[in-house]
Amino acid sequence: MRPAAMTVEQIEDLLRSEFPQAFYDGCGLSLERVHYADVRVRRAYHEDHLRPGGTISGPTMMELADFAMYVAVFSAIGPQPLAVTTNLSINFLRKPAPTDLLADAKLLKVGKRLVVGEVAIYSDGQDEPVAHVTSTYSVPAKMD
Amino acid sequence: MRPAAMTVEQIEDLLRSEFPQAFYDGCGLSLERVHYADVRVRRAYHEDHLRPGGTISGPTMMELADFAMYVAVFSAIGPQPLAVTTNLSINFLRKPAPTDLLADAKLLKVGKRLVVGEVAIYSDGQDEPVAHVTSTYSVPAKMD
Amino acid sequence: MRPAAMTVEQIEDLLRSEFPQAFYDGCGLSLERVHYADVRVRRAYHEDHLRPGGTISGPTMMELADFAMYVAVFSAIGPQPLAVTTNLSINFLRKPAPTDLLADAKLLKVGKRLVVGEVAIYSDGQDEPVAHVTSTYSVPAKMD
Amino acid sequence: MRPAAMTVEQIEDLLRSEFPQAFYDGCGLSLERVHYADVRVRRAYHEDHLRPGGTISGPTMMELADFAMYVAVFSAIGPQPLAVTTNLSINFLRKPAPTDLLADAKLLKVGKRLVVGEVAIYSDGQDEPVAHVTSTYSVPAKMD
Repeated sequence: MRPAAMTVEQIEDLLRSEFPQAFYDGCGLSLERVHYADVRVRRAYHEDHLRPGGTISGPTMMELADFAMYVAVFSAIGPQPLAVTTNLSINFLRKPAPTDLLADAKLLKVGKRLVVGEVAIYSDGQDEPVAHVTSTYSVPAKMD
Repeated sequence: MRPAAMTVEQIEDLLRSEFPQAFYDGCGLSLERVHYADVRVRRAYHEDHLRPGGTISGPTMMELADFAMYVAVFSAIGPQPLAVTTNLSINFLRKPAPTDLLADAKLLKVGKRLVVGEVAIYSDGQDEPVAHVTSTYSVPAKMD
Repeated sequence: MRPAAMTVEQIEDLLRSEFPQAFYDGCGLSLERVHYADVRVRRAYHEDHLRPGGTISGPTMMELADFAMYVAVFSAIGPQPLAVTTNLSINFLRKPAPTDLLADAKLLKVGKRLVVGEVAIYSDGQDEPVAHVTSTYSVPAKMD
Repeated sequence: MRPAAMTVEQIEDLLRSEFPQAFYDGCGLSLERVHYADVRVRRAYHEDHLRPGGTISGPTMMELADFAMYVAVFSAIGPQPLAVTTNLSINFLRKPAPTDLLADAKLLKVGKRLVVGEVAIYSDGQDEPVAHVTSTYSVPAKMD
């Protein structure tokens, strides 16, 4: 298996410096695993995530999936903070209880221009996913 | 043309009481138009929406699109706060400058169980969309 | 408005020579309108398109949508037969009666590397779409 | 593990009688595995599947994915030929060589009204998928 292009600590440092609006001490996001093209991110529960019915809102899950894909892109191609999502498609499967969420992102293709992956989101402690996401990131062309 | 099932004021009241985490005074979201199955929502700019590169982040647009669809569902079938998104697919088209976003949501089908719509998101003052979304909401079965 | 990059006849010639498996005399596909980034394609009804229930099958609509996008790509960027679909997402809205289908494809973005568009599919003579598609094509890099 | 709701032979019989346009002797589709919510379908290669560049066309893969999901729905909920696709989203990952395709469909959720699954498509003999699909089927309400 190929080694990851960046360690957990390197990705956290990159996120803190390049994306301070989303990743900062106390933001509730943490990186639990970073392998090559295969990462796990945790989102700590906060009551602001609730929607009518007392379950966690869709946008909370979409933001988490997009963040997990961003980390997975770094795990495969290294520091590319200007990589941008071109497409994200999410299916909501079950209503997540008010607890932590885990997002497992795996890349399906690591191309020169496009990186495609899928993300399964789980409620902490549950076996069946609450949401499933596929997403494509566009990687900026290298300056030569 | 059919009249909307709820007025702007009725939808705002419903959102404030049922979804206070997302819709409250100062939240930055406002309803600019509510026709039957055809609504416009504005998202006021806030620097927390920025991502690396100085453009507005994907999750900000996904949240706005989901909110606009939620309002469009109310415009067609009335107060159903437990309607839930089952699928959302977004294409990011252009990088939005740091300014207000407008989301135009139109429903393509209003079924008994599923409501399908599309949302075009614009930077305020621009003609070409920055993102395009299709989404499906599931409507709870009526209790008889 | 910009003129189309190719005429109906030029696109038909290109399709006949490059894609004879899909476009040939008697194939049932015809180009009804080609403007810049805005085309209409007709699919003549054939009983092989039916699925259980007597309506037209999903794959028939997916194939038509993909073909209409392909023609729309040519209308905007000229002869690029090696352009390939990277993503296609379809929502099936209504069951199409056994009659001709029309597909209206409009491009939302014409980029150097990616072209994004949407396609509305109608049963001939009906106002409401039977399916809605968004799709992305990847354009081969130019050889210099 | 739950047993499949139907055997390979029962599903083949259902397809032959209900969907003769798609499934007949010599159609090129065959069921290689039917477990509960987990099936494999093979599509024999035919030169009609080629697109410009000599690879297998997108619509061939979309049709195969939709068929594999249909079989997976039967494996979980039994004979429901009027189940219909409501949404299908495909990412094309690699260009498939002119050989057989295999489609592995797994269900992510088996609900009363909606069944959601994903399909990975492979070129026979290759490890990395050529396409990845997510799809939702709507199940007709039971008559009581």
